[in-house]
Amino acid sequence: MTTPNTMRGVLAPVVTPFKADLSADRERLIAHCKWLLSQDCGLAVFGTNSEATSLTMDERFELIDALVEAGIDPARMMPGTGCCSFLESVALTKHAIELGCGGVLMLPPFYYKGVSDEGIYRNFAEIIERTGDDRLRVYLYHFPQMSAVPFSIELVGRLLENFPGVVVGMKDSSGDKDNLVAMMNAFPGFGMFAGNETLLLKNMRLGGAGCISATANINPSGIVSLFNSWDADNADDLQGALNAVRESVQQFNLIAAMKKMISHYASDPSWNRVRPPLVELNEEQNNKLISDLETLDFEMPGL
Amino acid sequence: MTTPNTMRGVLAPVVTPFKADLSADRERLIAHCKWLLSQDCGLAVFGTNSEATSLTMDERFELIDALVEAGIDPARMMPGTGCCSFLESVALTKHAIELGCGGVLMLPPFYYKGVSDEGIYRNFAEIIERTGDDRLRVYLYHFPQMSAVPFSIELVGRLLENFPGVVVGMKDSSGDKDNLVAMMNAFPGFGMFAGNETLLLKNMRLGGAGCISATANINPSGIVSLFNSWDADNADDLQGALNAVRESVQQFNLIAAMKKMISHYASDPSWNRVRPPLVELNEEQNNKLISDLETLDFEMPGL
Repeated sequence: MTTPNTMRGVLAPVVTPFKADLSADRERLIAHCKWLLSQDCGLAVFGTNSEATSLTMDERFELIDALVEAGIDPARMMPGTGCCSFLESVALTKHAIELGCGGVLMLPPFYYKGVSDEGIYRNFAEIIERTGDDRLRVYLYHFPQMSAVPFSIELVGRLLENFPGVVVGMKDSSGDKDNLVAMMNAFPGFGMFAGNETLLLKNMRLGGAGCISATANINPSGIVSLFNSWDADNADDLQGALNAVRESVQQFNLIAAMKKMISHYASDPSWNRVRPPLVELNEEQNNKLISDLETLDFEMPGL
Repeated sequence: MTTPNTMRGVLAPVVTPFKADLSADRERLIAHCKWLLSQDCGLAVFGTNSEATSLTMDERFELIDALVEAGIDPARMMPGTGCCSFLESVALTKHAIELGCGGVLMLPPFYYKGVSDEGIYRNFAEIIERTGDDRLRVYLYHFPQMSAVPFSIELVGRLLENFPGVVVGMKDSSGDKDNLVAMMNAFPGFGMFAGNETLLLKNMRLGGAGCISATANINPSGIVSLFNSWDADNADDLQGALNAVRESVQQFNLIAAMKKMISHYASDPSWNRVRPPLVELNEEQNNKLISDLETLDFEMPGL
């Protein structure tokens, strides 16, 4: 095989439900993943919106095992495995491959700021070489607003050159259209996922692979519709409708807002919990969120 | 006892040596800690300069156990235990207390940016309550340039009010004199450690507790001398001499430069290794560093 299998489509960075004692709620997570798959939405578990960095390493292993044991297809999963410690990244990545995950999404180490491209390169080289498995498919997670550690064009080029068929794509959460264009121009065929659905149409027209978007947790069918018909005549209208929903949600902390939405539309108060340092929405925010969504006739069918 | 035991003096955020395969070098770490203690310098292991976030959780447990087993006095240790996941912070903190550590130094969760004081407060409240041990002494680690999550005066006040005798101090690595003054004015008796020795004299004159400084790894006796005689007539001269050494080191990445110095002055090339995303100094930087230090007649006696 000369070209690697790469993932395409719409993936949700799956939100992680918590019980009253803030322990991870395995059963609700499984149910949410099954609902997302039923909408043809893939599973980028352990992303920013999953509160992955608020989970322990042990929890990440236990939860991904629980998902696969529950019958969820690992080929549809792209777990986040990029940690501050490259050895922890190796451990999570090896485990994801052993389970058969379709790919892994990797943050750079995000504690030290102002590090060099050489240092970030070495981090990924160590992880890839120590993982030592040609089934590995790495998607780079570019999110400078949160990680404060960006991927430059030069760094991506060096990784692609030295690890062809292994480093296969990127989630670009910068929200910067120019970066999307620059990456796609520099690396034709790169498995580029827009970091939110407001850039999905643009990304598909550039030859991208889809999007991995927070709000795919609550609007998967809408986003998947646009992915499936991005070259149809009404694509711009579909994009406009997606953007309106997104606007209603992102006026608040996205994670807290999405959990409130699932809690509301599933009539399940238990969903409305986050781990510190995040804080759930207050009553006024809850009311504004739900009222704005009602104006849009928003629904979460089958939840 | 109405006032808590609190730590005072000069502590080094102990640099962590690595073997050729980048595994942690336990024996060299023990030796360096013993040398620091011989200079009357305390041990803030697992700080920024220890590359703590580049270590795995397992490594942190193993290394601190190894230090105590090697006879190092835990009362002189203030390990970093603040992680992105509050449950990992609880685990490390409990272990530190069980070993008898004099205190713990806690970063806020540092992945999510722009979080509220309420969210940071909840993080520390969860950690303190779940640790559930009245021997706990927490020092807050304020380092906005690296964590990107600052401690406001209001937040510190709320923590002091609700956890008196438990939250007892801070390492202020902001380098902002105004912040040092504001904190000491707001909270008289607060166990304030300047984040580097260039503010040690100022901090002592404000009633502070000492400093926890990277360069205490390579200039412990000089910094301890100023701590011991900060109210002497020649204190400003001592401060000036410390600053000159610091200048020579901080023209480069501090961690890489300090490891090069230990490697050079101990004639031990093995010390000159960092984990990604850091990178060791290049030849030109090495030469400039050592030549600048020779101009100052710098030495590391007894290393």
